[in-house]
Amino acid sequence: MTLFLGELANLVGGILIGDADQCCRGANPPEDARDGEITMLDSISRSDVLQQSSASAVITPEEVAGLTIPQIVVENPHLAFSTAVTHFRPPIKNTSATHGVSPTARIADSAEIHPTATIGDNVVIGERTRIHPGVVIMPETVIRNDCDIFPNVTIYHYTQIDQRVVIHAGCTIGANGFGYRQENGRHLPAAQLGYVHIEADVEIGASATIDRGSYGATRIGEGTKIDNQVMIAHNCKIGRHNLICSQVGIAGSSKTGDYVVLAGQVGLKDHITLGDHTIVGAQAGVMDDCAGNEVYLGSPATPQREQMQIMAVERRLPEMRREMKTLKREIEQLKALLRKDAEEATSSEKNQKVA
Amino acid sequence: MTLFLGELANLVGGILIGDADQCCRGANPPEDARDGEITMLDSISRSDVLQQSSASAVITPEEVAGLTIPQIVVENPHLAFSTAVTHFRPPIKNTSATHGVSPTARIADSAEIHPTATIGDNVVIGERTRIHPGVVIMPETVIRNDCDIFPNVTIYHYTQIDQRVVIHAGCTIGANGFGYRQENGRHLPAAQLGYVHIEADVEIGASATIDRGSYGATRIGEGTKIDNQVMIAHNCKIGRHNLICSQVGIAGSSKTGDYVVLAGQVGLKDHITLGDHTIVGAQAGVMDDCAGNEVYLGSPATPQREQMQIMAVERRLPEMRREMKTLKREIEQLKALLRKDAEEATSSEKNQKVA
Amino acid sequence: MTLFLGELANLVGGILIGDADQCCRGANPPEDARDGEITMLDSISRSDVLQQSSASAVITPEEVAGLTIPQIVVENPHLAFSTAVTHFRPPIKNTSATHGVSPTARIADSAEIHPTATIGDNVVIGERTRIHPGVVIMPETVIRNDCDIFPNVTIYHYTQIDQRVVIHAGCTIGANGFGYRQENGRHLPAAQLGYVHIEADVEIGASATIDRGSYGATRIGEGTKIDNQVMIAHNCKIGRHNLICSQVGIAGSSKTGDYVVLAGQVGLKDHITLGDHTIVGAQAGVMDDCAGNEVYLGSPATPQREQMQIMAVERRLPEMRREMKTLKREIEQLKALLRKDAEEATSSEKNQKVA
Repeated sequence: MTLFLGELANLVGGILIGDADQCCRGANPPEDARDGEITMLDSISRSDVLQQSSASAVITPEEVAGLTIPQIVVENPHLAFSTAVTHFRPPIKNTSATHGVSPTARIADSAEIHPTATIGDNVVIGERTRIHPGVVIMPETVIRNDCDIFPNVTIYHYTQIDQRVVIHAGCTIGANGFGYRQENGRHLPAAQLGYVHIEADVEIGASATIDRGSYGATRIGEGTKIDNQVMIAHNCKIGRHNLICSQVGIAGSSKTGDYVVLAGQVGLKDHITLGDHTIVGAQAGVMDDCAGNEVYLGSPATPQREQMQIMAVERRLPEMRREMKTLKREIEQLKALLRKDAEEATSSEKNQKVA
Repeated sequence: MTLFLGELANLVGGILIGDADQCCRGANPPEDARDGEITMLDSISRSDVLQQSSASAVITPEEVAGLTIPQIVVENPHLAFSTAVTHFRPPIKNTSATHGVSPTARIADSAEIHPTATIGDNVVIGERTRIHPGVVIMPETVIRNDCDIFPNVTIYHYTQIDQRVVIHAGCTIGANGFGYRQENGRHLPAAQLGYVHIEADVEIGASATIDRGSYGATRIGEGTKIDNQVMIAHNCKIGRHNLICSQVGIAGSSKTGDYVVLAGQVGLKDHITLGDHTIVGAQAGVMDDCAGNEVYLGSPATPQREQMQIMAVERRLPEMRREMKTLKREIEQLKALLRKDAEEATSSEKNQKVA
Repeated sequence: MTLFLGELANLVGGILIGDADQCCRGANPPEDARDGEITMLDSISRSDVLQQSSASAVITPEEVAGLTIPQIVVENPHLAFSTAVTHFRPPIKNTSATHGVSPTARIADSAEIHPTATIGDNVVIGERTRIHPGVVIMPETVIRNDCDIFPNVTIYHYTQIDQRVVIHAGCTIGANGFGYRQENGRHLPAAQLGYVHIEADVEIGASATIDRGSYGATRIGEGTKIDNQVMIAHNCKIGRHNLICSQVGIAGSSKTGDYVVLAGQVGLKDHITLGDHTIVGAQAGVMDDCAGNEVYLGSPATPQREQMQIMAVERRLPEMRREMKTLKREIEQLKALLRKDAEEATSSEKNQKVA
């Protein structure tokens, strides 16, 4: 699959600035790209993201000044990048025409594959990993050593699963993200060319679903534990050692730091970031970034102390409303009294004048 | 299965008013019934629903005056209609005793059926449709051309799936609705004799569940996109080109218009209707009909503008409570002041009198 | 598996007070233990739980005075009890190496097992029970007569399912509970040595998940009906004839009485108890025990009457805020008026004095 940059520039119809003989082994968004891979900028105003990236080349709409890595300049960087990603990770429609294990799969000797499982083309399964009955692993997926994939789990193509990962029954890893664009009144699916990467020592509860990234990874960090029926949308980056309780939903492209705790039925908006050690209480709805090291409650989620005060007052709202009516009446009485005083004063003045 | 109306009247023990030799090919509720089918009225006060129906005959508790279609008058129309529905769509307990594809299934030549899939009796699969590993399709289901049914999906009997539908892994289409009646302290299941109809170009995310109708269809309109872990209950009618985000739950018999958007974790009460272009924000709970062309937030869901104002005040509740205490104190002070004035006035009057 | 108590005391390294030749057939927490089984106290201050238990022996950190059943005194009762539980219910990693039905399973003659189902070692299936395609039943599970286990359900080891239970497609019964302890910055799984017990006449909707207990049972009471996508966590005890609607989540160790109704998307905190005939409205979050025979709404859930009053005021909050501003202004005006009066009074006094 490896291409010379010159070939890749031809493939995407762009102008190469840099070494045409440099090899390119993959295409990924800046934060997922590794050494030897190409990445993409959709605007040169965001070129600072390249500083944190390990990418070895970049597709860009204009030449970026002062860049040390080769650039391929194109008119439509999204289209060109899709073409590149599709070259390195071609879409796969069919799981496997064959029963059982594809002849092109590489299965470690000590792995246990149940005869009712389906293992697609070019899948790699590590030592001592157990694939239970009814599991379907689609092509190009890699599962490393000592994993347990429980019955009836489906793992889509190109998924990466590191050591000692446990996935309970009925999970779906790597289905398409929920991304559409409207055209002539119809919703057309956006590209879902990415993958899911689950790091070491993650455990995932029954019937959880984790969608593949658009171009790069939806990532679950090392040691994170995910409960049943959790939904993690495309492009999310979940940190290390999180605890994500049952029925939590995390919308697209959101990020959590390390040691984040999300209690049951919490919802996270898309494109937000929760800092390390953020704790979110049950049923809360997080609508904005959270700095970390803090507890949030409620929907919209609010720092615990503030939310507790709000909730305390909410419980006393009927009483408050009654108090307010009392105040209103008392003010009316005061006003009436003062009006009377004023009238009396006036009449007494008149009397005095008369007198 | 086709019956003459005379035969059907005998079957349900009713009196036929109309042509005994007219053919009847099915039984469905008024809005699902097509030409050539019989429908049901449970009260003649609702006979206007027949005007929107394509039904060619009706089961009714009393003769409906001025009706052009044949009527079968019975004592218990629900019981009689159940009998009719059960004739045309007999309940099926067994998926298929056989491994793989039932000999009575009709599979298009270009369809791809994985050898681990189970295809029940009389199932029809269209051209180029792909049935992935571990999929179970129960008897009498029809899936048309160019569909993709991903691994480990279960589709219950009598489901109708139109062209270009994509169903991701782990979905369950057509399980029994959650309907019970209590008798002697036990919950007895209500009839679940209907089916699910998914129209063309629908995409359904992983682990979503859509229950079958009681007598007729639970319907998903053309072009609607449904995200992971969405739950759609029995008898719902979802409009065309909706976007229904992850973990949304829609209770029984609710309806949405076209281009409705429901954000993540939204809940809809049963038997409500959302107009075209209704948008509901994340985690909202819709308790009433919504007119359409409006954004709703919160639980209970409220038009955006109103809810934003409520939420703005909610955040200031602790401050409001403090202000209220201040007002209370100030009123006490005013009252004290006026009391003092009054006393002084009195004493000065006394003094004057004394003087 | 049966042990003499003397053998069991040796196994767990404890001192036996009582008859060494008494037989012990199992180990379970006090409320799950049956006659002939051993149970555990983690503190002798809780020894009153033994009065409700049918256990025939107990593991305890100190000798309990006045107890009629044998005691095994150990330093670490949790560790000793885990050892005992593990003896009677050894952990099982593999479902079955074989295709189809294990040779050690006992299947009733009239049961129907689909050829694509996997039935593990020592599983028992009762008369007329139907196991649909793709179902995976892990070792040591018992399913009694007249059950319907729909396609692609996974049932983990040691599950107990009584008569006439219906489980719809895609459910997972008996996966590990979500319990971890932190050590050196990593989450280590707590013991999940228990099981799920589903009593007679329970119906469970598609894609529901019920986790196994830590040491004993997660129990679903007789006649209870559970809708799609419900999550019931480890150690919960659900009462009889409950109705649990779609997408409800119940956290660990919570209990419901009989005839409890939980509407859609309700969440229950861990370790709480809902009395008989409790009704909880849609999307509510129950944070505390509920006495029963009452309707609760909102998050945190509050008795209906109180919550309705709170919600009525919430809707009027913007109006209330405006009223409050008006009151504030009026008080300011009153204060100004009184100041003016006071000034005039003073100046009139001065005038009088001058006069």
